[in-house]
Amino acid sequence: MIDLTVKDALNAEGPLENVRIRGWVRTRRDSKGFSFLEINDGSCLKNLQAILDADAPGYASIEDANTGAAVAVIGDLVESPGKGQAWELKGRELSIVGTAPEDYPLQKKRHSDEYLRTIAHLRPRTNKYSAMARIRSEAAFAVHRFFHNRGFHYVHTPIITGSDCEGAGEMFRVTTLPPGYTADKDSDYHTEDFFGRAANLTVSGQLEAEPYALALSKVYTFGPTFRAENSNTPRHAAEFWMIEPEMAFYDLSMNMDLAEEFTKDLLTSVLDASADDIELFARFVDKELMSTLENIVSQPFERVPYREAVEILKQSKQTFDYPVEFGTDLQTEHERYLTETHFRRPVIVHDYPRSIKPFYMRVNDDAGDPETVAAMDLLVPRIGELIGGSQREERLDVLEARMDECSLDKAPYWWYLELRKFGSAPHAGFGLGFERLLMLVTGITNIRDVIAFPRTPRHLDF
Amino acid sequence: MIDLTVKDALNAEGPLENVRIRGWVRTRRDSKGFSFLEINDGSCLKNLQAILDADAPGYASIEDANTGAAVAVIGDLVESPGKGQAWELKGRELSIVGTAPEDYPLQKKRHSDEYLRTIAHLRPRTNKYSAMARIRSEAAFAVHRFFHNRGFHYVHTPIITGSDCEGAGEMFRVTTLPPGYTADKDSDYHTEDFFGRAANLTVSGQLEAEPYALALSKVYTFGPTFRAENSNTPRHAAEFWMIEPEMAFYDLSMNMDLAEEFTKDLLTSVLDASADDIELFARFVDKELMSTLENIVSQPFERVPYREAVEILKQSKQTFDYPVEFGTDLQTEHERYLTETHFRRPVIVHDYPRSIKPFYMRVNDDAGDPETVAAMDLLVPRIGELIGGSQREERLDVLEARMDECSLDKAPYWWYLELRKFGSAPHAGFGLGFERLLMLVTGITNIRDVIAFPRTPRHLDF
Repeated sequence: MIDLTVKDALNAEGPLENVRIRGWVRTRRDSKGFSFLEINDGSCLKNLQAILDADAPGYASIEDANTGAAVAVIGDLVESPGKGQAWELKGRELSIVGTAPEDYPLQKKRHSDEYLRTIAHLRPRTNKYSAMARIRSEAAFAVHRFFHNRGFHYVHTPIITGSDCEGAGEMFRVTTLPPGYTADKDSDYHTEDFFGRAANLTVSGQLEAEPYALALSKVYTFGPTFRAENSNTPRHAAEFWMIEPEMAFYDLSMNMDLAEEFTKDLLTSVLDASADDIELFARFVDKELMSTLENIVSQPFERVPYREAVEILKQSKQTFDYPVEFGTDLQTEHERYLTETHFRRPVIVHDYPRSIKPFYMRVNDDAGDPETVAAMDLLVPRIGELIGGSQREERLDVLEARMDECSLDKAPYWWYLELRKFGSAPHAGFGLGFERLLMLVTGITNIRDVIAFPRTPRHLDF
Repeated sequence: MIDLTVKDALNAEGPLENVRIRGWVRTRRDSKGFSFLEINDGSCLKNLQAILDADAPGYASIEDANTGAAVAVIGDLVESPGKGQAWELKGRELSIVGTAPEDYPLQKKRHSDEYLRTIAHLRPRTNKYSAMARIRSEAAFAVHRFFHNRGFHYVHTPIITGSDCEGAGEMFRVTTLPPGYTADKDSDYHTEDFFGRAANLTVSGQLEAEPYALALSKVYTFGPTFRAENSNTPRHAAEFWMIEPEMAFYDLSMNMDLAEEFTKDLLTSVLDASADDIELFARFVDKELMSTLENIVSQPFERVPYREAVEILKQSKQTFDYPVEFGTDLQTEHERYLTETHFRRPVIVHDYPRSIKPFYMRVNDDAGDPETVAAMDLLVPRIGELIGGSQREERLDVLEARMDECSLDKAPYWWYLELRKFGSAPHAGFGLGFERLLMLVTGITNIRDVIAFPRTPRHLDF
């Protein structure tokens, strides 16, 4: 007897005798003298149909093989006379591995996403969320393969950090002091704590990736990042995963090339590896999903300087909630207008005003535009900003002046500054929010539904 | 002109005209009328030698092309007359990208690991730590490839958690309340906090991986985990990465098979992908590295029940610091005796006393030994425990009794218990500490030296 996954059974090259399939019953239909079981084991979207004869050993417990039960069926894999499947299992023997009582929450009817969030431990047993989980896994693998194939090295930048990459942080504190602990002086709260200083959860691995880029040339991080923003929106989670490549000897233009190539490669890879799963979302979640994705992979991305983007928005005759002028940050409404309405394709807006961007972005003074920095945002239809990045300021004096301008204490950044003192080199990088990519790929509009166990304000279940 | 990495240049299939190499100068040697630059860009361990003629443009600044400087050299890749390299760069033009003043800390002399930890932002520019970084990256890729090839799905289990997997935690607290915040009642410390309840950094993704195994059959996690243990040892870090596969329909024996296959595959993959880098460690860090690794990949692992292991230890005539009896946990001294002295190969000790193992491990009552649980630890030479795992308790009543035995409040585990109520199935999994694997592969004995920016008590630099 050999054990087969449902996926391997459905892809069998010929009939197979004496196989065992183990999984969970999606539905059962009883007929006179036999029963049909739709069995799913999560190896793929499709179920395998098993037909059990009333004479089969174990058939006496067929009543227990109801929706949600774990079962094992031994039999022969034979050609299926039915439509939509090449193979079915002619069952000889049934074992009930684990029953599912009648209060099993995932009965056949359709459940709302809101309800399924309350049973996040069971929702991967639905078609939609198992497809989501497989797509997430394939996308993550595609990320690693993309960079590995191109000579990038994966760096695990620290999660607990003493620095605040964005310079203005809604960060989670990390401590071992008990709640309500009181110290004699304020400074003691840090000296008495585990690290002897203030500790936070990282908002980005960029600052710590830079030293590795300036040693190994091409690196990337892929890890969890955190925002303690107390906002309950479909786009925000307190914990999410980010991919951040960082490359020595790259300027902004090369950075844009890589961002475009990366985005297209990820979509193409997932469309290829997860075709069945993506199709489910295209059928039931977003009817325009396939055309949205094909639009992205099939043509060059538009590139437009921020100054020009502002002009386009001002001349658009659209009514925006937020007015646009040089020096204002683009809101989602502006981003979506540019990519969905004006250009109708992905757009990279570049060279943003220095006043709205962090200290580490390179000032465009040698390009004659010192009021802007070499920043870039990739905007895609339906999502808005998918990627944000920049060329980094590699000149020590300019970087220090920028830190003063941003009123940053330079002392904790001594090591970051030293990178500009010893063998400094132009370098650039970007960050891609992994959940936003998954929302793009699936058409799912709530970030809570692309994360296994989402963390949001007042939600820490499971 | 084409840009080449040092690695691509060294592996060129023939001479190449008009190439540019960018990287950092490791050493410079001046001769009459020309200079030799050893250039490294981190793409591989080896340097590329560039020869610059005193007539070359940029040669006037050759004094700035000193150790640590970032340079760009344009020239032709030609066959090298020298030993130890196939190709060298006949430079036509030199640019100094970033100078390295005389106080650059990485001058040619050898530096201690302790010192290099204080300049963790520069140490990846040394041979040893760039090799380490590349090995870490290749090992991580090998992890993903191993599981991807075998139909496992990668799950991102949450980092911030309300549960404590080990049932006894030295955990970091996560909060948005300011230090010294005082509430009216103790309970308010949680209700007023971001999540409305106590929040910690995860010590393991296992509990949250189980629901996914019981839906997708084969899953794994690979992410950061945390221990707030206030111990300064070469083996402990507050933040480290762990790999945790979890498989439905696996028993302990299949779990052991997978652990052995996984360990061997990782070592083989890294020995193959990082041969040059591993060789550096075999030459300079641990002379017995290659024989240790070959011993592991070349023969079956030993498997021995805990009861038998205890007998072996008692009859060993060794003097241990800690005496051994049934019911005592094995210490590193015992583990290393078993694997290094007695069996002289990797050993999986299995079926440990229930009294020393967590509540979720399956009780061996149906095997007639209810005093033990289906636990396993893989012990390897030099490291001791590399992997710990178990078959999980899938029977609701037994699990509940075990939780009572461990005095655990069952309420927060409602969802974990429900996995045993709805379609429960035998399942198993294990955890492999990624840093321990890297210590095994490199011979490095201090965990701080296999992590880019290590976090330990009172150390949160960078």
